[in-house]
Amino acid sequence: MGLTLEEIGQKAKAAEGMLRTLPTSRKNEVLERAAEALEEQQDMLLRENAKDIEAAKESHMAQGLVDRLLLTESRILQMAEGLRQIAGLEDPVGEVLSMHRRPNGLEIGQKRVPLGVIGIIYESRPNVTADAFGLCFKAGNVVILRGGRDAIHSNQAIAKALRGALEECQVSKDAIQLIADTSHETAERFMKLNQYVDVLIPRGGAGLIRTVVEKATVPVIETGTGNCHIYVDESADLDMAVDIIFNAKTQRIGVCNACESLVVHEKVKDALLPRLAGRLKEKQVELRGDEASRRACSDIQPASEEDWGKEYLDYILSIKTVSGVEEAIDHINRYNTGHSEAIITKDYGNSRKFLDGVDAAAVYVNASTRFTDGFEFGFGAEIGISTQKLHARGPMGLKELTSTKYIIYGNGQVRP
Amino acid sequence: MGLTLEEIGQKAKAAEGMLRTLPTSRKNEVLERAAEALEEQQDMLLRENAKDIEAAKESHMAQGLVDRLLLTESRILQMAEGLRQIAGLEDPVGEVLSMHRRPNGLEIGQKRVPLGVIGIIYESRPNVTADAFGLCFKAGNVVILRGGRDAIHSNQAIAKALRGALEECQVSKDAIQLIADTSHETAERFMKLNQYVDVLIPRGGAGLIRTVVEKATVPVIETGTGNCHIYVDESADLDMAVDIIFNAKTQRIGVCNACESLVVHEKVKDALLPRLAGRLKEKQVELRGDEASRRACSDIQPASEEDWGKEYLDYILSIKTVSGVEEAIDHINRYNTGHSEAIITKDYGNSRKFLDGVDAAAVYVNASTRFTDGFEFGFGAEIGISTQKLHARGPMGLKELTSTKYIIYGNGQVRP
Repeated sequence: MGLTLEEIGQKAKAAEGMLRTLPTSRKNEVLERAAEALEEQQDMLLRENAKDIEAAKESHMAQGLVDRLLLTESRILQMAEGLRQIAGLEDPVGEVLSMHRRPNGLEIGQKRVPLGVIGIIYESRPNVTADAFGLCFKAGNVVILRGGRDAIHSNQAIAKALRGALEECQVSKDAIQLIADTSHETAERFMKLNQYVDVLIPRGGAGLIRTVVEKATVPVIETGTGNCHIYVDESADLDMAVDIIFNAKTQRIGVCNACESLVVHEKVKDALLPRLAGRLKEKQVELRGDEASRRACSDIQPASEEDWGKEYLDYILSIKTVSGVEEAIDHINRYNTGHSEAIITKDYGNSRKFLDGVDAAAVYVNASTRFTDGFEFGFGAEIGISTQKLHARGPMGLKELTSTKYIIYGNGQVRP
Repeated sequence: MGLTLEEIGQKAKAAEGMLRTLPTSRKNEVLERAAEALEEQQDMLLRENAKDIEAAKESHMAQGLVDRLLLTESRILQMAEGLRQIAGLEDPVGEVLSMHRRPNGLEIGQKRVPLGVIGIIYESRPNVTADAFGLCFKAGNVVILRGGRDAIHSNQAIAKALRGALEECQVSKDAIQLIADTSHETAERFMKLNQYVDVLIPRGGAGLIRTVVEKATVPVIETGTGNCHIYVDESADLDMAVDIIFNAKTQRIGVCNACESLVVHEKVKDALLPRLAGRLKEKQVELRGDEASRRACSDIQPASEEDWGKEYLDYILSIKTVSGVEEAIDHINRYNTGHSEAIITKDYGNSRKFLDGVDAAAVYVNASTRFTDGFEFGFGAEIGISTQKLHARGPMGLKELTSTKYIIYGNGQVRP
């Protein structure tokens, strides 16, 4: 696929019209066939993936990154299963969100339609190639993928299998295109392809996302980092607080909805912190707190200003003492990344203050921040978690991959 | 107000928290007081505006542009009236769009919240200063305005009156800030102020909008140009067609929802075009068409390829002949700007094909494209018409100036 970006864009636009009105049953047929194709072509996929793995080892890639890159039989089955699950989800396209009649008799409705052409820029997980295609396609969108250089053979192999499935189902194979040229220069030009691309979704680390936000002229949905807080209020059930903090901090540390910072009411710090420290010792969690917290518990190391804004993604927790819910809200709004924040409380008024006052995609009362996830929210799938406020905020499922159009039924109305 | 952008951003963020939870009644009180303040300070406003007008005349600004810049007693009353109307609109903030219970007992709802800090970049109409403040404020947002250099005295005077009203109502006057430095350099830095600004809305001509889209790293809502088409189907009521085209073309020519291009079924061109040409002569509309249309009507001049993509904003109409609804849809999707498109038809199937197949913010059956407007749609107000697909598409009222947050009620849930 040695096409220029211009050619790729034109092919995407040409495919867009067909996808806009493709019936759900045909979309599901493609997804089922694509799942089969991945399974049938497992040997080819493993062979191509081996080329990437070999190159990665030759360039002394870190073991964790090599593992991200690796395809196995079970990972291929997971990709296929993911496509089948997407086939089982409700098609968001065509829903009329509202319709009303105006005094002049016009009936004006708002209908859910595909976004059009979605660009995905991602790093070295080859499964994103199949996942992103499945979600974008089910919502009626054409997808242009730009994966990492390290995974190029794997991505091309997966894209080839998916394009074959589209062709067999007589749907334009350009519903998915992969940019073969993985140079930074081409990536930057891709980010400015406004004529052909309706939205860009970067998937990867903070560096990638920052680059896309800075360079792109195409609208971007930012999926971001999570410096998530749990605030333990004066009235909290401390058993519940310990359980929730333990879960949110340690159940999985490398994810954006893990808890990174504890905010604690000064009146419960003495009762909470020693117990919590004991529990977190099970997982060797390092505690870094302000002076007041350190007076309450000797296991806590001093925190620096830098700690408050940090997404550790590690067995570290920062601890800040506050005089009440207002100060907790101020602290959180100052240092958070707009992802997920929780209050543990029995107080009705404070729960409402926290829900209203905290500025984040997801605000919890008495539950772990780890639930911010498309599957946990019941969307059946997820393309990422938006930390921006435009278009989509929080976990993004199929609906977030759509736009709307106004449809207006008249019988000759003109504007006076 | 000689503040740096950094200081302006910090003040905006400081005001944001108060606005996030400001009760509707207090927002309305501010809007009413602001309307009074504009009326009371009319002399000051006119005096400051006179400085801008004098400078404009000295620099030989075109008469039309001077008129755009001019404040009069009646224009000031209109601004005040606009604020009172906004006070009368329903507050979008706080609406819970959905709430559902998950199997684990978590109740997850999606609640409408302010966007946060909105940046508006506009040209020389001083009334935008009051209008944009009113809409952003009612939706709970802080607004930072960057108006044109030509209107700086007028804009500062209006902002001063509005800030005075905020202060009298004990609401942070930084709910509106105007950037005093109107240099391009500062405007460009403003477009990259991601740390403080959640969204930018450019209001003005195509050049301004293109610049903002190209330079901004803050998310942009693009309000765009309209190359709007009307397709007259084989089965159309030709009287209705002539009335609607006449209205959409001539009722107001300089607006984005005016009709710029007629697409006509080849089987009705002979019956339609001479009648239409006769009617459009009343307004001296110039007709530019393809060969087939010119055979049907001798008043039509030859169109060039360039005509199909043109937003004339003038008494000119292009005419394209097609063999049916599919070709009409293809032509429109190729040349339109995603604004407003209409079909005139009696055919059920063709009306549905057109509604589904045409990619635009508003698609009409048997009505004038001139209705694409926040007031005509019943929103009560409008900050612009979005021609992009992300976040908001079509007329943008108060709801489009909001975001959502997920609120989650638990009773101790942790993720297994």
